[in-house]
Amino acid sequence: MKKLLVIHGPNLNMLGLREPGHYGSENLESINASIADEAKKYAWKVDIFQSNTEGAIVDKIQGCIGNADCIIINPAAYTHTSVAIRDALLAVAIPVIEVHLSNIHKREEFRKKSLIADIAVGQICGFGALGYRLAIQAASEHLDGAS
Amino acid sequence: MKKLLVIHGPNLNMLGLREPGHYGSENLESINASIADEAKKYAWKVDIFQSNTEGAIVDKIQGCIGNADCIIINPAAYTHTSVAIRDALLAVAIPVIEVHLSNIHKREEFRKKSLIADIAVGQICGFGALGYRLAIQAASEHLDGAS
Amino acid sequence: MKKLLVIHGPNLNMLGLREPGHYGSENLESINASIADEAKKYAWKVDIFQSNTEGAIVDKIQGCIGNADCIIINPAAYTHTSVAIRDALLAVAIPVIEVHLSNIHKREEFRKKSLIADIAVGQICGFGALGYRLAIQAASEHLDGAS
Amino acid sequence: MKKLLVIHGPNLNMLGLREPGHYGSENLESINASIADEAKKYAWKVDIFQSNTEGAIVDKIQGCIGNADCIIINPAAYTHTSVAIRDALLAVAIPVIEVHLSNIHKREEFRKKSLIADIAVGQICGFGALGYRLAIQAASEHLDGAS
Amino acid sequence: MKKLLVIHGPNLNMLGLREPGHYGSENLESINASIADEAKKYAWKVDIFQSNTEGAIVDKIQGCIGNADCIIINPAAYTHTSVAIRDALLAVAIPVIEVHLSNIHKREEFRKKSLIADIAVGQICGFGALGYRLAIQAASEHLDGAS
Amino acid sequence: MKKLLVIHGPNLNMLGLREPGHYGSENLESINASIADEAKKYAWKVDIFQSNTEGAIVDKIQGCIGNADCIIINPAAYTHTSVAIRDALLAVAIPVIEVHLSNIHKREEFRKKSLIADIAVGQICGFGALGYRLAIQAASEHLDGAS
Amino acid sequence: MKKLLVIHGPNLNMLGLREPGHYGSENLESINASIADEAKKYAWKVDIFQSNTEGAIVDKIQGCIGNADCIIINPAAYTHTSVAIRDALLAVAIPVIEVHLSNIHKREEFRKKSLIADIAVGQICGFGALGYRLAIQAASEHLDGAS
Amino acid sequence: MKKLLVIHGPNLNMLGLREPGHYGSENLESINASIADEAKKYAWKVDIFQSNTEGAIVDKIQGCIGNADCIIINPAAYTHTSVAIRDALLAVAIPVIEVHLSNIHKREEFRKKSLIADIAVGQICGFGALGYRLAIQAASEHLDGAS
Amino acid sequence: MKKLLVIHGPNLNMLGLREPGHYGSENLESINASIADEAKKYAWKVDIFQSNTEGAIVDKIQGCIGNADCIIINPAAYTHTSVAIRDALLAVAIPVIEVHLSNIHKREEFRKKSLIADIAVGQICGFGALGYRLAIQAASEHLDGAS
Amino acid sequence: MKKLLVIHGPNLNMLGLREPGHYGSENLESINASIADEAKKYAWKVDIFQSNTEGAIVDKIQGCIGNADCIIINPAAYTHTSVAIRDALLAVAIPVIEVHLSNIHKREEFRKKSLIADIAVGQICGFGALGYRLAIQAASEHLDGAS
Amino acid sequence: MKKLLVIHGPNLNMLGLREPGHYGSENLESINASIADEAKKYAWKVDIFQSNTEGAIVDKIQGCIGNADCIIINPAAYTHTSVAIRDALLAVAIPVIEVHLSNIHKREEFRKKSLIADIAVGQICGFGALGYRLAIQAASEHLDGAS
Amino acid sequence: MKKLLVIHGPNLNMLGLREPGHYGSENLESINASIADEAKKYAWKVDIFQSNTEGAIVDKIQGCIGNADCIIINPAAYTHTSVAIRDALLAVAIPVIEVHLSNIHKREEFRKKSLIADIAVGQICGFGALGYRLAIQAASEHLDGAS
Repeated sequence: MKKLLVIHGPNLNMLGLREPGHYGSENLESINASIADEAKKYAWKVDIFQSNTEGAIVDKIQGCIGNADCIIINPAAYTHTSVAIRDALLAVAIPVIEVHLSNIHKREEFRKKSLIADIAVGQICGFGALGYRLAIQAASEHLDGAS
Repeated sequence: MKKLLVIHGPNLNMLGLREPGHYGSENLESINASIADEAKKYAWKVDIFQSNTEGAIVDKIQGCIGNADCIIINPAAYTHTSVAIRDALLAVAIPVIEVHLSNIHKREEFRKKSLIADIAVGQICGFGALGYRLAIQAASEHLDGAS
Repeated sequence: MKKLLVIHGPNLNMLGLREPGHYGSENLESINASIADEAKKYAWKVDIFQSNTEGAIVDKIQGCIGNADCIIINPAAYTHTSVAIRDALLAVAIPVIEVHLSNIHKREEFRKKSLIADIAVGQICGFGALGYRLAIQAASEHLDGAS
Repeated sequence: MKKLLVIHGPNLNMLGLREPGHYGSENLESINASIADEAKKYAWKVDIFQSNTEGAIVDKIQGCIGNADCIIINPAAYTHTSVAIRDALLAVAIPVIEVHLSNIHKREEFRKKSLIADIAVGQICGFGALGYRLAIQAASEHLDGAS
Repeated sequence: MKKLLVIHGPNLNMLGLREPGHYGSENLESINASIADEAKKYAWKVDIFQSNTEGAIVDKIQGCIGNADCIIINPAAYTHTSVAIRDALLAVAIPVIEVHLSNIHKREEFRKKSLIADIAVGQICGFGALGYRLAIQAASEHLDGAS
Repeated sequence: MKKLLVIHGPNLNMLGLREPGHYGSENLESINASIADEAKKYAWKVDIFQSNTEGAIVDKIQGCIGNADCIIINPAAYTHTSVAIRDALLAVAIPVIEVHLSNIHKREEFRKKSLIADIAVGQICGFGALGYRLAIQAASEHLDGAS
Repeated sequence: MKKLLVIHGPNLNMLGLREPGHYGSENLESINASIADEAKKYAWKVDIFQSNTEGAIVDKIQGCIGNADCIIINPAAYTHTSVAIRDALLAVAIPVIEVHLSNIHKREEFRKKSLIADIAVGQICGFGALGYRLAIQAASEHLDGAS
Repeated sequence: MKKLLVIHGPNLNMLGLREPGHYGSENLESINASIADEAKKYAWKVDIFQSNTEGAIVDKIQGCIGNADCIIINPAAYTHTSVAIRDALLAVAIPVIEVHLSNIHKREEFRKKSLIADIAVGQICGFGALGYRLAIQAASEHLDGAS
Repeated sequence: MKKLLVIHGPNLNMLGLREPGHYGSENLESINASIADEAKKYAWKVDIFQSNTEGAIVDKIQGCIGNADCIIINPAAYTHTSVAIRDALLAVAIPVIEVHLSNIHKREEFRKKSLIADIAVGQICGFGALGYRLAIQAASEHLDGAS
Repeated sequence: MKKLLVIHGPNLNMLGLREPGHYGSENLESINASIADEAKKYAWKVDIFQSNTEGAIVDKIQGCIGNADCIIINPAAYTHTSVAIRDALLAVAIPVIEVHLSNIHKREEFRKKSLIADIAVGQICGFGALGYRLAIQAASEHLDGAS
Repeated sequence: MKKLLVIHGPNLNMLGLREPGHYGSENLESINASIADEAKKYAWKVDIFQSNTEGAIVDKIQGCIGNADCIIINPAAYTHTSVAIRDALLAVAIPVIEVHLSNIHKREEFRKKSLIADIAVGQICGFGALGYRLAIQAASEHLDGAS
Repeated sequence: MKKLLVIHGPNLNMLGLREPGHYGSENLESINASIADEAKKYAWKVDIFQSNTEGAIVDKIQGCIGNADCIIINPAAYTHTSVAIRDALLAVAIPVIEVHLSNIHKREEFRKKSLIADIAVGQICGFGALGYRLAIQAASEHLDGAS
């Protein structure tokens, strides 16, 4: 059974409360439930983690060596500012899929630059919570195809 | 029954022949077959179009008024240079999903700028031919949810 | 009797349908009729052409050597991306007037750069379909004054 | 009877004397006469003002609240440097048409940036003194159409 | 009794009339009255000046040598374009506090650069007319503390 | 009774010790005491928080939903680098006032960019500890006026 | 017998007519004749193609798989704007030599950037029609040497 | 007898008072006296003008047609911001020599750009009041040599 | 006996596991042992600290006032993004030496900018673990020489 | 008999030894021999010069007034940094052809800028030693055609 | 008797021969003679040096410690590229005056940047050979005044 | 016995005389003596070279093929401007260590860019003459470790 680590970056615990125009009205619990359901379909064991602290996310990523076959990460604000998370992902050398709820290309200029995108397998953005489920499907089909 | 227009930009007819390191070894016919299969699952009627000519793609987009509920487009090279395709998509005002086979963030600097991304619902890149199937799923679930 | 070539760039055939907030609700047929009327007032023979294809516009411009005394062009999206149209206009060396329906300075940053403006006699933007009629008047009075 | 304010920016009082290669050989008196004639055709009452002082132009614009239905302005050198004139035009909230005698796109790089263009209805440049008459016509037809 | 010079830059005489979304609906007379009241509390003699002309503001600043212990300035549009006002403030070497009614960071890109900010004691923006009263308090407490 | 959250960013616990040329010689305890005094004048209940960790500040901001009517924040170093704090402030949608002890416009180039300024009501900088007291006054008068 | 594809980009059919200052007074027919002569010397079978349409050039390049050992291309205006032609050349993976009649470094700034140069074997510019003949010689000697 | 116009820009009336570190301790009266003396040596009739207002300097320059053979200008702050003064100098087409008291290359970045330098005969900076006397000598010898 | 604080930034705890091409195959424990040995040679008491959290590193730096005579820091990813660590180092005002295992000039563009370098005594990069030992030697000889 | 000066810039004496991936394995002597042969074919008298010192190359260029009808130069590293060589070439006003062994567009960003290209007749790059022979042919045919 | 070192940079030995449009028709011998005459007037002993080699100029500057009271330098091409000459001038710490024959602000963009200007006392450009004589006068009067 | 080449760039022969604030008060002879001592410790044969001429440094580097196992270079001013020295180092393909006496990150903006750094093994800056000794140690331990 393959293991999947899903990481939600800062402020994603505010979903539902936070700017529904950008992020939709679903809350994180409900998204996590649908992630768990989707993972079950593809027979992945899933570990879901959220933190507002850059260093805690780095710690979590480091800890998944030997414990994850794929990382799905929505780095949220840290997408644009964290070299440390980039370096942690490089260090563990596990395939990464980047997900964003909103279409980051429609927003402030600084949200267009991702420090993760060029080290990820691929990127999905703009489809809300569905993005995570598409990413799980991609993890299963695409990464399998690669092995 | 909803109607879907899938547009492949320039040089995508060379798939399989062209730079397998970036684009994989599957050819366009086989990709189109899997698109057709996936569309069937979601009960979409699908029209697939490929052209190397910017103006022909503009013509095709214009022609889909009243004939499409969603456009999935992989603008390929025109992603980075075509304001005309952007304007055609704005003119028909049909939801658009942008797909790229390769992870455009891993390549030449000029491939990082998309003239389509900020007018699309969302963007999927880096998962090869699977990206089209994820886009069909997104069209079905996400756009439905929006209506 | 002097001869005038009027060129409409890509997506202008969508006028009336397309983003009325930017381009108004008049369609291209009605605009062309008013162009014909205005041309008659100034005793110009007028040839009107629209295409979505950059190369077809280049072909048309090349073909007007000996067949046009002035070109009025609304290059639309190609304003910002086409060196080929610029080169065709330089090659035929016929006076050019650039027209835009919308005020291009109010829109996306990339619409502020025109590859045609510095080789045109002048530029008129922001007045909708009236812009073409002003351009015909300019062609008559101003270019006459120059000869 | 509608009221029109025409503003000539710095050094336009030197017309005829000043760089005929860029600005033509007609002097300001003769241009003002043709403006007055054109205004009469469209039944506008016209007030014409020239100053070399940025603050004086700001004062004049402020003074036209209740006294003008449209402003035609050739801000000349202040096009590129005056936020104060921009702010005055925003403050009075009267439709503005920007006119330039020369084609500003053919000249020094710094003349390409206009601090007025994105708050104007439209812009006419490159047709010499005729530009003012075209602007009056635009004021009449286009602004009427808008009301 | 200490002396305070308050300078209002161009178009601030239009307050109340001008863009209430940015500047509020209070007019300059009423603001000046509240400035006078506040100054009285802190026992400052206050001189208030408004002009639309850069040179007149320079003249006024020069004239306050020996006549002012502090300058509170809202340079409005000249914030972003006037080296002359900057130089005048440097020349008189009197402590300066910069005030803006609106939050200049929420507006056009060019309003983010201030030619005064780095030579002022401090800057207050975004609080409307209250900003002047806070500045007077700062002048009293902070500048006193410095002496 | 209204509730105020005051947030001090990284290294502000070093005040008094740290670079007195930029930040003055008062320490954080004494500043907090004067904040408490000022808040009492305006009948605000005040909660004061300092942390060196970006994520801890994000946590604190998130926690103030329902517990604060206004946030006064001096994000210190995070002013220039934290999209996460920006996003947290957007998520809780409580009015924010930005304060800086030093005049950030007099220092390194990178200190001139604030990721908070354009989402705050206003900004006060350069007046040392007095800045917080002015901000409390602004919170009371200005925000009241807005309600 | 090796096969050579020579591609002339947009407006090169206007040679002789077009800006002789930049491009010389020889027309395309005469240039093509000298290309044919030179190719004969080196025992190349030569196919010469000109089009004003980007997509048609892409089509032509794609069609030369198995039909060309070397491509000599003067992309003219598309040198600076066409990612699609670049991608087609990458897709067919045939050695490319880039030729320009004029010295592109002496002209407008935007003509200095070539989207083809870094994927070509080499570049020859500034020698007029002779450039094609030098390129044929390079194709013969240099590419032979490489095999 | 040749006629010389000497123009001092904004804040130069503050010399002696103003930042002696940059501008020396001599006042404008004494500098003007030495200018008059030097002009006498070379048999120039000299007219000296100072203003803080951009428009007044433009007026003065315009007025010297027929009244000056050379203009020596220290545009001070307007060096860096005034297109209007540049245009006035172009309009009168009289040889111009640019003088700065301080070495503008040692100061703020924005002082390095001169809007006058490329239309002047030459520039002298960094020698304090002596610069004017050198400029008069240059006007006499160099401009004479040119006629 | 002098006291030395050695700080390892984020992901340095992954050494040996992490990208050996960039960072070598030695792990952190072994590096720390060699640091301890080297410190002993120069009679320094050494305190070694690693954290993935920016705020924790700031806390540690603050804590060393009175407890350290020199700081050797390899800020890793925070080199390029942390103003907070810079500010902490400025606050404690203890001499700092910056070390990088890899040659940061050979890597991604964003790794070339250090927010620490201009406030450090000096920088050593590219020599792997040896860099720390060189830094200790520099701390001993160079800083001693300075006292 | 016409005279040709061939100049090899710095490090070209290392050919064969130096980075064969970029420059091929032929050494300078052998290249010079083939240059001499080719020159003989076209009846040019040839003078070949190599130096690592910018000033020595400037001296050599200056010395060829009256001694050369054409200069073929491979400025190597000085292509990108030497205004002095550019000025020497401008001073002697002899036609120049620029040659590079490698395709400079495939290498470091700074190698794309040539300080010579816009003052040369033309440029040949990417064909190794053959480039010099093509340049001699261009010198003969093209420059002859120009006389 | 004070000692003056005059340095002429690369290609100035070509004066008279070289681009008279930019540099005039006088040759270096004649300029040096007038420099010697002028120096005599002010009782300076003068040493004049020209070289095309950056390092030779550096050597010369170093050698003048104890042998020069002032350096007048026209660094020509090295103005824009030589940090070594800048460093040599800083090392000897003798007052420097920068002279250019032509008005460098009227020429290529890269000639506007001087690596010497901000470490010189002042700069004189655009007056041809007269510039050296003005510089000698400045050396005498201005530098004397400073001592 | 391994051989070491130490290269000192321009103006380093002025050490002790030159700007002691940046470079310390030790002279080059004394530094060279300590280099010789240190080299002896590690059993390196050392050759030390200083020149102010870029080309002479290039010559020296070329000459060390077969004569050096490591180059320690302080390119001084040429760090920022010399592609020729970079190319020479690439040509000889001997490991290079870059040393700077001063901390180049604390100085002018242009000193932050090194054309050598990305081709060196590593860089040491800011420790004065000690930097050379650290570099010798690095050459011995680190380069040995690599073989």
